[in-house]
Amino acid sequence: MDKKTIQSLQDKDNVDQLFLVKEKTVAVGKNGRPFMGLQLGDATGTIDARLWDRVDELSREFENGDILKVKGLVQLFQNRKQLIVHKLERIDSSTVNFEDFIPQASRSAEDMMAELLHLVRSMKNDQIRQLVLDTLEDPEIRPKVLRAPAAKSIHHAWIGGLLEHILSICKIMDFMGTHYPFLNRDLLLFGAIYHDIGKITELSYDNGISYTDRGRLIGHMQIACEMIDKKASRILGFDDELRDILKHIILSHHGKMEYGSPKRPKFLEAMVVAMIDDFDSKVATVKTIVDNEKGSGEKWSRYNELFDRYFLLDDLNEKY
Amino acid sequence: MDKKTIQSLQDKDNVDQLFLVKEKTVAVGKNGRPFMGLQLGDATGTIDARLWDRVDELSREFENGDILKVKGLVQLFQNRKQLIVHKLERIDSSTVNFEDFIPQASRSAEDMMAELLHLVRSMKNDQIRQLVLDTLEDPEIRPKVLRAPAAKSIHHAWIGGLLEHILSICKIMDFMGTHYPFLNRDLLLFGAIYHDIGKITELSYDNGISYTDRGRLIGHMQIACEMIDKKASRILGFDDELRDILKHIILSHHGKMEYGSPKRPKFLEAMVVAMIDDFDSKVATVKTIVDNEKGSGEKWSRYNELFDRYFLLDDLNEKY
Amino acid sequence: MDKKTIQSLQDKDNVDQLFLVKEKTVAVGKNGRPFMGLQLGDATGTIDARLWDRVDELSREFENGDILKVKGLVQLFQNRKQLIVHKLERIDSSTVNFEDFIPQASRSAEDMMAELLHLVRSMKNDQIRQLVLDTLEDPEIRPKVLRAPAAKSIHHAWIGGLLEHILSICKIMDFMGTHYPFLNRDLLLFGAIYHDIGKITELSYDNGISYTDRGRLIGHMQIACEMIDKKASRILGFDDELRDILKHIILSHHGKMEYGSPKRPKFLEAMVVAMIDDFDSKVATVKTIVDNEKGSGEKWSRYNELFDRYFLLDDLNEKY
Amino acid sequence: MDKKTIQSLQDKDNVDQLFLVKEKTVAVGKNGRPFMGLQLGDATGTIDARLWDRVDELSREFENGDILKVKGLVQLFQNRKQLIVHKLERIDSSTVNFEDFIPQASRSAEDMMAELLHLVRSMKNDQIRQLVLDTLEDPEIRPKVLRAPAAKSIHHAWIGGLLEHILSICKIMDFMGTHYPFLNRDLLLFGAIYHDIGKITELSYDNGISYTDRGRLIGHMQIACEMIDKKASRILGFDDELRDILKHIILSHHGKMEYGSPKRPKFLEAMVVAMIDDFDSKVATVKTIVDNEKGSGEKWSRYNELFDRYFLLDDLNEKY
Amino acid sequence: MDKKTIQSLQDKDNVDQLFLVKEKTVAVGKNGRPFMGLQLGDATGTIDARLWDRVDELSREFENGDILKVKGLVQLFQNRKQLIVHKLERIDSSTVNFEDFIPQASRSAEDMMAELLHLVRSMKNDQIRQLVLDTLEDPEIRPKVLRAPAAKSIHHAWIGGLLEHILSICKIMDFMGTHYPFLNRDLLLFGAIYHDIGKITELSYDNGISYTDRGRLIGHMQIACEMIDKKASRILGFDDELRDILKHIILSHHGKMEYGSPKRPKFLEAMVVAMIDDFDSKVATVKTIVDNEKGSGEKWSRYNELFDRYFLLDDLNEKY
Amino acid sequence: MDKKTIQSLQDKDNVDQLFLVKEKTVAVGKNGRPFMGLQLGDATGTIDARLWDRVDELSREFENGDILKVKGLVQLFQNRKQLIVHKLERIDSSTVNFEDFIPQASRSAEDMMAELLHLVRSMKNDQIRQLVLDTLEDPEIRPKVLRAPAAKSIHHAWIGGLLEHILSICKIMDFMGTHYPFLNRDLLLFGAIYHDIGKITELSYDNGISYTDRGRLIGHMQIACEMIDKKASRILGFDDELRDILKHIILSHHGKMEYGSPKRPKFLEAMVVAMIDDFDSKVATVKTIVDNEKGSGEKWSRYNELFDRYFLLDDLNEKY
Repeated sequence: MDKKTIQSLQDKDNVDQLFLVKEKTVAVGKNGRPFMGLQLGDATGTIDARLWDRVDELSREFENGDILKVKGLVQLFQNRKQLIVHKLERIDSSTVNFEDFIPQASRSAEDMMAELLHLVRSMKNDQIRQLVLDTLEDPEIRPKVLRAPAAKSIHHAWIGGLLEHILSICKIMDFMGTHYPFLNRDLLLFGAIYHDIGKITELSYDNGISYTDRGRLIGHMQIACEMIDKKASRILGFDDELRDILKHIILSHHGKMEYGSPKRPKFLEAMVVAMIDDFDSKVATVKTIVDNEKGSGEKWSRYNELFDRYFLLDDLNEKY
Repeated sequence: MDKKTIQSLQDKDNVDQLFLVKEKTVAVGKNGRPFMGLQLGDATGTIDARLWDRVDELSREFENGDILKVKGLVQLFQNRKQLIVHKLERIDSSTVNFEDFIPQASRSAEDMMAELLHLVRSMKNDQIRQLVLDTLEDPEIRPKVLRAPAAKSIHHAWIGGLLEHILSICKIMDFMGTHYPFLNRDLLLFGAIYHDIGKITELSYDNGISYTDRGRLIGHMQIACEMIDKKASRILGFDDELRDILKHIILSHHGKMEYGSPKRPKFLEAMVVAMIDDFDSKVATVKTIVDNEKGSGEKWSRYNELFDRYFLLDDLNEKY
Repeated sequence: MDKKTIQSLQDKDNVDQLFLVKEKTVAVGKNGRPFMGLQLGDATGTIDARLWDRVDELSREFENGDILKVKGLVQLFQNRKQLIVHKLERIDSSTVNFEDFIPQASRSAEDMMAELLHLVRSMKNDQIRQLVLDTLEDPEIRPKVLRAPAAKSIHHAWIGGLLEHILSICKIMDFMGTHYPFLNRDLLLFGAIYHDIGKITELSYDNGISYTDRGRLIGHMQIACEMIDKKASRILGFDDELRDILKHIILSHHGKMEYGSPKRPKFLEAMVVAMIDDFDSKVATVKTIVDNEKGSGEKWSRYNELFDRYFLLDDLNEKY
Repeated sequence: MDKKTIQSLQDKDNVDQLFLVKEKTVAVGKNGRPFMGLQLGDATGTIDARLWDRVDELSREFENGDILKVKGLVQLFQNRKQLIVHKLERIDSSTVNFEDFIPQASRSAEDMMAELLHLVRSMKNDQIRQLVLDTLEDPEIRPKVLRAPAAKSIHHAWIGGLLEHILSICKIMDFMGTHYPFLNRDLLLFGAIYHDIGKITELSYDNGISYTDRGRLIGHMQIACEMIDKKASRILGFDDELRDILKHIILSHHGKMEYGSPKRPKFLEAMVVAMIDDFDSKVATVKTIVDNEKGSGEKWSRYNELFDRYFLLDDLNEKY
Repeated sequence: MDKKTIQSLQDKDNVDQLFLVKEKTVAVGKNGRPFMGLQLGDATGTIDARLWDRVDELSREFENGDILKVKGLVQLFQNRKQLIVHKLERIDSSTVNFEDFIPQASRSAEDMMAELLHLVRSMKNDQIRQLVLDTLEDPEIRPKVLRAPAAKSIHHAWIGGLLEHILSICKIMDFMGTHYPFLNRDLLLFGAIYHDIGKITELSYDNGISYTDRGRLIGHMQIACEMIDKKASRILGFDDELRDILKHIILSHHGKMEYGSPKRPKFLEAMVVAMIDDFDSKVATVKTIVDNEKGSGEKWSRYNELFDRYFLLDDLNEKY
Repeated sequence: MDKKTIQSLQDKDNVDQLFLVKEKTVAVGKNGRPFMGLQLGDATGTIDARLWDRVDELSREFENGDILKVKGLVQLFQNRKQLIVHKLERIDSSTVNFEDFIPQASRSAEDMMAELLHLVRSMKNDQIRQLVLDTLEDPEIRPKVLRAPAAKSIHHAWIGGLLEHILSICKIMDFMGTHYPFLNRDLLLFGAIYHDIGKITELSYDNGISYTDRGRLIGHMQIACEMIDKKASRILGFDDELRDILKHIILSHHGKMEYGSPKRPKFLEAMVVAMIDDFDSKVATVKTIVDNEKGSGEKWSRYNELFDRYFLLDDLNEKY
C-alpha cells in the first residue's frame, strides 16, 4: 500500500503507515470500556484518530512523541476526517527521521541560511557583523537555527520556522533601511536576526514543540543576552555601550511591558524591530488561519479567539 | 534688517519681522498689571514671546491666526529662546501668504502627487484604479490633498503632511505586495491612499490646524465612506461587494475598536493597512520628537507622555 | 396526535411533529458508531435531541435551517428535557411558514408599527419627521423592520425584536423629552428609531439569525448612515449640518469607542440615546436570563458569563 | 452701592459687598513681595480675585469658609472676569446666612420634599414605605436631606442637590414601574431615595462642600446600611430577607466593583437603580458643563477630561 | 473489608465504604442509555466515579450532599484514579458525622482557637480587645469560627480553614508589629481576625461549601460591619471614631475597589492587613496547587488559569 | 552664625550656610526681569528659595548638583517655608562632602552591612551563600551597596536606602522561612539581597539620584543577571539549573509583566520575594508620605496620585 500524506487522505481511504503521536487521551464509553483518542501527525498536517479495542493494553505501550505504525480507515464526520484505528504498533524511533513527521518551512533551511549570511555580510559595522557571524557560524548554534521553530504554536510553529521568520524580517529591514534613510540598517538587521534567537534554547523541538526549563525560567530574551555576552567577550575591544544598545533591542522587542519586555523601545531602531517583528508574525498567523479554513467552503472562518473576530476566507488576490 | 528664520534666531538677536500668532494668553503680574504671552510661528518652527507694555490695549487688536509685525529682542532662559516684544502691529492677512508661516512637507506637494499618481496607474483592478483616480483628480479634492496635514499634532502635522504620509505608506505597500505575494497589491495601495483621505475635510488648515464640525461629529472614516459612495456611484457597474471591501479597509484601519475603528480588520490586506499606517505614523512621530530635542545637548529626551518613556537622543546611524 | 409546543412538553411525552433544526452535530460513541445531537426549535423555545440509528445516512439529508418531521420520546435528565428521536424526515421548506418555528415578539408587529408611526408623526421638525417617515414607509424597508431581530442573540433576538426594542425606547424617550425639557425630543425619537435600524441589513433572519457579509464588513452604523444619505438626498433642502447631527447620534450610540462607536456622544441627546439603548437592552437581557431559569426551582441562576454574576430568581414583584 | 450678583458683574464694575472665601492662596511676585489669589463665591457663582497690598498681614486674618466684605474693581482678561481687590475685611459669620453664598437647587427644598413624600406614600409594601417615611421624617435626618448636595463637585453639587437628584430619579422610577410592569416599583422608589442618602453624613456642607471623616473612612453606602439597621430595628417584624434586599440595592448601586460597589446588582430592580442613578447624574453633569460654557461664544466646549471629549455647545432644542 | 482513604486508593482496589456525594451528573451514552458521573469525597480528597446500571432509577434516590455506601472497583485512566461503581445505597445522614467526609485543617480547631485567644489577650487597647473577645466567645459565633472555611474554593477551602488563615495572619502581624514599630499592633491583630470573619455567615458549609443568600446579597464585609455594630453597642463608651477605623480596615481589606472593596486602605495598618491577607492567601493557594500536582511525576504543573502560568513542581527546599 | 538644618529652619530665620542645588529654574516677572527659583537641600530635607537680583549673571555660575554658599531670610507663605536669597556663591565641590547634603538612611551603612552578612552566613546552601558573599565583599560592589538608594524617588530614595530596604526584607524573610517551613530560606534571603542589587549600576547617586545609561537601556534585572553570571563562573561547579532558578527570582520579582518582569514568578519562593519586596516598598512609601505631611496640622493628607487616595494623618499608634 502506498504511503499517503495526511493532507491527501480522503473519506473511505485505507491507511497503513507511520505517524507521530502528537496527543494521546483515554476516555471511558458505556460499560466502563475505554476508548483512545489520538492526534496523529506527519509533515503535511494532523488528523484525529480513535481506537476502540485493547485500549488499556495498548495505551501503555507508547507515549506522546512516539512513532506508530497504524492500520485503519478514514471516515468523514461533520466535514472533518477521522481515522478509525484497527491496529497500531510502536516503532523504534532511532529507525526513522523525526523531521518527516513535522511540518517544514517552505524553503530549504540551508538556502535560507545562505541568503541570511549574504545580508549579514553586507553590514557596515565590524563589531555587529562579527558578533552576528560568530553566532550564526558557531557549530553548536548553527544547526539549531536551521531547525528551531519560531513559536510553540500560532506562527512559524514548524521546523525551520524561526529561520523563515528571521529571513522575512531581514528582507523587510533591508527595505526599511533605504525607505527611512535616517535609520541604522545594521541595528535593524541585528534585531531581525537576534530578537528571537534565544528560542533555539527556549524551545525543545525534537518530538513536537515544547518549552524547555530554561525557556520557562528565564526566557528567550535573557538567553539572547547571555549569547551576546559570550560572543562579545571574545571580540577584542567590543564597545561596551554598543553591547547595551544591542541588548536593549532584544529586551524591548515585545514592544510593551505587558507583553513581557522589561524595557520599552527607547530609540527608533528598537521600535522598528519590535513593530516589524509583530507585523510579520501577525501576517504569518492570519495567513495560516485563513489557509487552514479555506477548504471548508465557508465564506467566513470560525470565530478566532486570539484575534477576537471572524476572518473573510475569500481569496481577494484572485477575486479583484 | 534681514529677516531671520525662527530656527536660526540666537540669544541677543534683534528681531523686526512678521510672525503668525499661534497662541495668545494674558496673565497678571504684580500690582494687577497684565503681561501677554505669545507663541509665534514661521515655516521653521515656533518661539515663545512676552510683551509687558500696553497689554490691555494691544491684546484687543489681534487674535490667534493673525499675522503680526514684531520688534523685539531674543533672550535665553533655561536654554530656551524667548522673544521679548517691544512693539507689535497687526498686518492685513490678505497681503501675506499664510503658508510662509506654517511648516511645510520636505518635498514639493506636486512632486509627491506625481509620484503617487504613477503608483495608482500601476493598479491592475480597473474599478479600484478608476475610483482612486477620480478622487485624486477631482478639482475640489485635489488641492485639499496637496495641502492637508495628516493630523492636528503628533505626526505629519504640517501642510502637505497627509500626502507625505500617504506616499510613504504607498511605497511600503509597493514593497509588501512583492514581499508577501499572496496579498492584493491594489487593495494595499487603495488603503494607503484612502484610509486618512477624510482628513481633508475632518481638519481645517487655513490658519493653524484644527477640527472642523464635520470632523468632530462624524470623523474622517465616515467622510471617506461618503466619498467612496459618491465616486463609485458614477462608475458604471461598480461591484457592490468591492465597495463594502473598500469601506471595510477604511472602517477598520485604526486596528482596534478602542482606537475608534467600528470594525476590526477581517482580512489580511485590511490588517496590513492598519499596521503599516500605525508603523509609519509612529516612526514619523518619534523622529520628530528626537529631532526637536537633539539640539538640547542632552543624551536623553525629556519624559514623553504619549510613549511613556525617555528617548535616547544619540544619532545611532552616525555612531555605529 | 396533537401538536404540542416545546415549552409544554413533559417527561415521557410522545412527539410526532415539525421542528426547525437550529444546530446539528455528529459525535462518535463506542466502536466508532456515531450519534447525532440536535437542537430543535419552535416558536416557544428549543429542546435538545439525540438520534442513535442511521446517523451517517440521515445526517446527510438535512442541514441547519431545515424543517424536520420528528417522532420520538421526551426524557428528563438532570432536570432538563431531552428528545430521543426515533424517526426523522426533512420537509420541503416551501410548504411551511418559517416564522412558526422562531420566537415572536409578544405583540403584533403591525400594532407596534402603528404605535411607532403615531409617535413619529408627533415630531415637530419637518425634516427629521420626513426622513423617518420616508424610511419606515419605504416598501423595501418596512417589511424588514417588521421582522428583523434586534440582535443575533442576547436581547430581543427574535422576529420583530428590533421593532419591539425601538418602540420601547421611543416610549422612554417620549417620557424623557418631558422629564428633561431642555432635550430635543425629535432627536431623541430619531435616535430611538434609527440607532439600530441598520440591523435590518446587518442581520439575516430567514432561517435563524446570522450576520450578513455587509454586517460583518461595514456594520449597522455604516448601513444606517447610508440610509440617511439616500433618504435625505430626496428631501429638498435637507439641512447639511442636521444630517451630520443625525449621523453623529448613530455613530456614537454604543457610547464608548471600545464598544465599536467611532465617535463618543458629544451632545446630550446623543448621550441619552446611547444610555437608554444600553439600558433597555440590559433590562431585556436580564429579564430573559431570569425567565429562562425561573423554572429550575433554584433561588439563584447559574453563573452568567456576560454579566459575571449569579442572578436572584425570586419574583420580587410578587414577594414584596 | 447696590449689591450685584457675581453672575451679573461686568468689566469695569466697582464692587463693595460680601462674598464667601472658597479658596485662598498666597504666591510671591517680583522682589519677594507676595500677592493673594482668592476664589470668591455667592449664590450665583464664583469669581477669581487678586490682592496686592498688605498681603502678609491680611492673609492671616481669614480662612477658607469665612465671609469677607470686599471693595474692588472688575477687569476682563482673556474673556474671564477678575476682581482686583482694593480692600477686604472679615465679617462675623454669625451675622450672615451662609446659604446666601452657595448655589441653591432650582426649586424650594420643601416643595421637592412634599412631592417626594407624596410618591413615598404611594408605595404598596408597608415595611418599605414605613422605613422610608421613618427616615425622611426623622427630625435629625430631614433637615440634612433638605440641604445636602449630591456630590462634592461634578453633579448636583449644591445645597439641595441631593434632594433634587433623588426626586428626579423617583419620577423616572415612577415611569419605569409602569413601562416595565414586571419590576417592583416600591424597590425602585426605595433605591431612588436611599441609594445616596448616606451622603447627608458623608459630606460636610456648612462652608463649602467637603468629605467628613466618616465619609472618607466608611462611605455613604455603609452609612445608609447603618440607617436601614437603625430604622428597621424599630419596625416590628421587619422581614430579614427584605432588609438584605434593600441593603443589596444600596451596596450595588455603583454598578461595578471598580466604581466602589462591593456587590454587582443581582436582580433587575437593583440594576435599574444603578443605571438610572448613573443616567440622571450624567445628564445633570453634562448639562452643567454645557451651560457653563455656552456664554463663551464658542461652538465647542473646552476639552473635558472627565468625559474625554469636547461637547457641542449649540442649543439643539432651539435650533431644530 | 477495611475502610481506605481516597488518598490511599490504588488501581485495582476493591471498595466498599461510605462517601459524600459532591457532584452528580447524568449523561447519555450510545443507544440513549444514560450513565451517571459522580464526584465522591472523604476527608482526604475526592475521586471521580462512574455508574452504568439502573442509572435512571438510582439517580432519583439521592442528591448532592448525601452520604452513599458504595461498592466498586478502582481503575487507572490517564494517570488518574476512577471508581467504577457496581452498587450504591443512600445512608441516613443523621447516622454519620459529615465532617468525616470533608477535608479538615491540619491542626485541631480548638488548639488554634486557644493560640488565637492568647494573642488577642495580649492586645493593649481595652475596647478593641473586648470587642474581639466578645466576638470570639459569643456562643453563636464561636462554633462557626471553629468550622468555617476561608473560601468556597481556591485557598483554605476546608473545615477550619478560616481559623487556620486567621491564625497564620495573626502570627505574621505579631512579627510585623515588632518589625515596623510605628504600626499599631492591636489594629493589625484586629484586622487579621475580623477581615474575613463575615465568612461564617457568607458561606454555608454543612454539606460542601456554598454561598448563602446573605453572602450573595450583602457579602462578608457588610456582615462583619454589622457584627462590629452589635458588639460595640454593648461595650459602654465604645469610641465612635475607633468604630469607623475598625470598619475601614474591613471595608478596605481587598485592597482595590475592583476587588470589591468600597474603600481603598487609607492608613498603614489597613494597608498592611490588605496586603498580608492577600499574601497569606496566595501562598496557601499556590502551595495547594503544587501539592496537588506533585504526584504527577511532571516537572511543571498544568496551566493554571487563576495565575496564568505553569508552576515548577520541584521541591526546592529539598533540592538546594 | 550657627549652621542650621533645613528641617529646623523657622520663619524669619537668617541663613548663611552651604546647600546643594537640587533644581534651578529661571522665570520672567514683570518688565521682562527674571527671577530664579531654587530647590536647595541638605541632609535633613529641602527648601524652596527665590532670588531676584543679578539673576541673569548668577544663573550662569552654577548648575544643578553644585554646592552654594547662601545668605538669605526665611519667610512663611501658605504654611510653607521659603528662603529669600540675598547672596549666593558657588563653592568648589572638592572641598565638601556631598553626602552631608543628601538624606541618609537612619542607621549606619556599615552596621546594616554587618547585620546583613551575619544573615548571609547562616545560609545552608554553599553555592548560594558563596555567590552572595562574593558579591557583597567584591571591592567594586561593596562600597556601592553601602551608598546606593533603592529608587530615584518614591521609597528608600536616599543614600543607603537600598541596603536599608534589603536588610528589612531579609529580616522578614528570616521570619517567613520559619512561618512557612516548606519554603527554602536560602532562596528567600538570596531574593531579598539580589532582587534590586542591579540598582547600584542602574542609578547614579553622586549628585542627586538619576538613571544611568545602562539603567535606561537594560535595567537592574539584566544587570543583576550579569552579576550572577560573573560571580557563578568563578565558583567551581556552580549548578546550572540553580543559576537559572536564581535568575528567575530576579527576572520575576516585579510580579507581573506589566510592571516590567519578563517572567511571572513560577515557584513559591520567587512569588514571596516579589510580594514582600512590594510590601516593604509600599510600607516605606506610605510612611514617608504620611511623615512628610504630619506637620501640616491637617487630619488628611493632600491627594496622593500614586495611590489615588487621601491618607489619614493621625498617629493611630499613639491614639489607640
